[in-house]
Amino acid sequence: MTIHDLETPALLIDATVLDRNLRTMAEYCSDHTLALRPHTKTHKIPEIARLQLQHGAAGITVAKLGEAEVMADAGITDILIVYPLWGEKKWKRLTDLASRGRIAVAVDSLVVAAGVAQAAKAAGVEIGIRAEFDTGFHRCGWAITTDAMAELEKIIALPGLRWDGILVYPGHIMGNQNTRERDIEHENKILDALFELLDSASIPYPVVSGGNTPAAFASHRFHRLTEIRPGTYVFNDRNTVEAESAEFNDCALTVLVTVVSTSISGRAILDAGSKTLSADALLSGDRLGYGYILQHPEFKLKELSEEHGHLGIPNHSRIRIGDRLRVVPNHVCTCINLHDRVYLVEGEQVIDEWKVAARGKVA
Amino acid sequence: MTIHDLETPALLIDATVLDRNLRTMAEYCSDHTLALRPHTKTHKIPEIARLQLQHGAAGITVAKLGEAEVMADAGITDILIVYPLWGEKKWKRLTDLASRGRIAVAVDSLVVAAGVAQAAKAAGVEIGIRAEFDTGFHRCGWAITTDAMAELEKIIALPGLRWDGILVYPGHIMGNQNTRERDIEHENKILDALFELLDSASIPYPVVSGGNTPAAFASHRFHRLTEIRPGTYVFNDRNTVEAESAEFNDCALTVLVTVVSTSISGRAILDAGSKTLSADALLSGDRLGYGYILQHPEFKLKELSEEHGHLGIPNHSRIRIGDRLRVVPNHVCTCINLHDRVYLVEGEQVIDEWKVAARGKVA
Repeated sequence: MTIHDLETPALLIDATVLDRNLRTMAEYCSDHTLALRPHTKTHKIPEIARLQLQHGAAGITVAKLGEAEVMADAGITDILIVYPLWGEKKWKRLTDLASRGRIAVAVDSLVVAAGVAQAAKAAGVEIGIRAEFDTGFHRCGWAITTDAMAELEKIIALPGLRWDGILVYPGHIMGNQNTRERDIEHENKILDALFELLDSASIPYPVVSGGNTPAAFASHRFHRLTEIRPGTYVFNDRNTVEAESAEFNDCALTVLVTVVSTSISGRAILDAGSKTLSADALLSGDRLGYGYILQHPEFKLKELSEEHGHLGIPNHSRIRIGDRLRVVPNHVCTCINLHDRVYLVEGEQVIDEWKVAARGKVA
Repeated sequence: MTIHDLETPALLIDATVLDRNLRTMAEYCSDHTLALRPHTKTHKIPEIARLQLQHGAAGITVAKLGEAEVMADAGITDILIVYPLWGEKKWKRLTDLASRGRIAVAVDSLVVAAGVAQAAKAAGVEIGIRAEFDTGFHRCGWAITTDAMAELEKIIALPGLRWDGILVYPGHIMGNQNTRERDIEHENKILDALFELLDSASIPYPVVSGGNTPAAFASHRFHRLTEIRPGTYVFNDRNTVEAESAEFNDCALTVLVTVVSTSISGRAILDAGSKTLSADALLSGDRLGYGYILQHPEFKLKELSEEHGHLGIPNHSRIRIGDRLRVVPNHVCTCINLHDRVYLVEGEQVIDEWKVAARGKVA
């Protein structure tokens, strides 16, 4: 079967590019003695998680319990859930997972850690704990204060927990190479302040986990990182390219689409809208548009309806109904989460079909 | 079971509000002798499509073939596909559908109509055809020209097709009551020009299909409409309220969420981000924010990560980890498309669970 046999819209993963992306990140981490714990929220596909482990990943990261359950069902045994889990039902699911493998969670409050500890103790399992600190993204994570150290001491003393160390998410480090220099320097000052407080309180931190895709290849320059958790690097996307962390030929996932209408002057309508590509805006650069057209970078995907992509084209373009194009989405993580399956391709040959098994696992 | 027993995030549909929304639109259409052919892309749930038919809908509308197949599998027999379908595989699926019920498609090109006709003739079925005209939204639809009339004459002459009439999508009529008056007047001028051309060419138009939710209750004022295709009215959402077509107590679908972190001053983090609510922006008003918090309208859902909602709260708010809130999403159609199931509730009682059976059917 070739891609010409597929109905559109269809998600294609280029096997060669995927393999190169997996190898490049694995080699970088190996060269710098960093553990690689890829965030699988990007792909939600157990087959890709297994490839990451085969390339030397120390374990995987997920955002939600439902994703962890899918990955555990696929035989993956070392899972970090980077999410504050609240409530008896979630703690029960967490301890069930911990009876099947090595499970850790991120926390940023004593009340969540205490709930996890109580459930772990009752179930007779051990849950790894990583304390999340806020280094500037301002989403989750303790502020770097002596109050936080006091809470950490209480958490470390709780039975049922395994103290793994600390975790940061440098989601604010997104820009291009120029701004990144300044960002790294700033991040290191914050990290140093954190280590100073931890040292003063004699709190050990065997694990210091950080790292998103845009800053991934600068991870060795952040102080004392032992592990990184990039997600998007397996595929890359328009955001990654805009952040100068990849080029378009490093983008492993493209959306195969068809031109279905050319009635409106200066436009071609693609059979892929926000329910296929996601409406996520570009995070840097001019922030315009919803995807990059591989064959025609000069065409602009200006607007999305739910099922229509509005492509701006020159008036005398030779684009016709039935023409197929390949689109690099702005944000691959939210794009793939809209789909049940992806096609693995080598050139134009379709060599496999994978289920997006953890799609929609928001709870 | 009550909503307190549900894990979050969870989609709740208030049965009372849903019923009222269904009845109000059905009565409006009945009062004005308009056929109601609701767009089921909003809910993608066969049970709700059946309720719409029980309330007198003439049939249903879908965007994609995959949605039509799910609805046909659920026993629904009168389906309009408002989408230009291209390619042998799609035409085969279309004629398979037509062997099971009364199927019509919108077209805006001779080439698509010819493909459909050829497939219909080969399969020995009849496919209804509605010609889409552009009245200002500039997405699909012929321009109102004599050239279009010449193409229509060719289409009407094709064997295998049943000529149903014309179709418009007034997606540009979105604003508040003030701007809408001017929009209706403008739309009528365009429609009159279309009717004049059709009459000159002696092309009949038994069906004139229009109507989105924001303009739905003004449909009787558009010239010669025989049918409307509103979708969002079953649930309503923040966009509908912003367009002054509903109030928040008319919003049948809310997302039940939990506060999972309060580490960042002035913020509470909800367990629902763009993979739960969708990142669709508000289409009118200040265009800010990603949802409306029913219990605390003063809290602003400022940003979304994939699995985190960033809620701006006063610094001395009493919001705590574990608190549950209900969010009206900006755009309910893209929100529900992210989920496998919804819960039907009466007050706090959960009375049913429905599968979002046509979720993700983009092809």
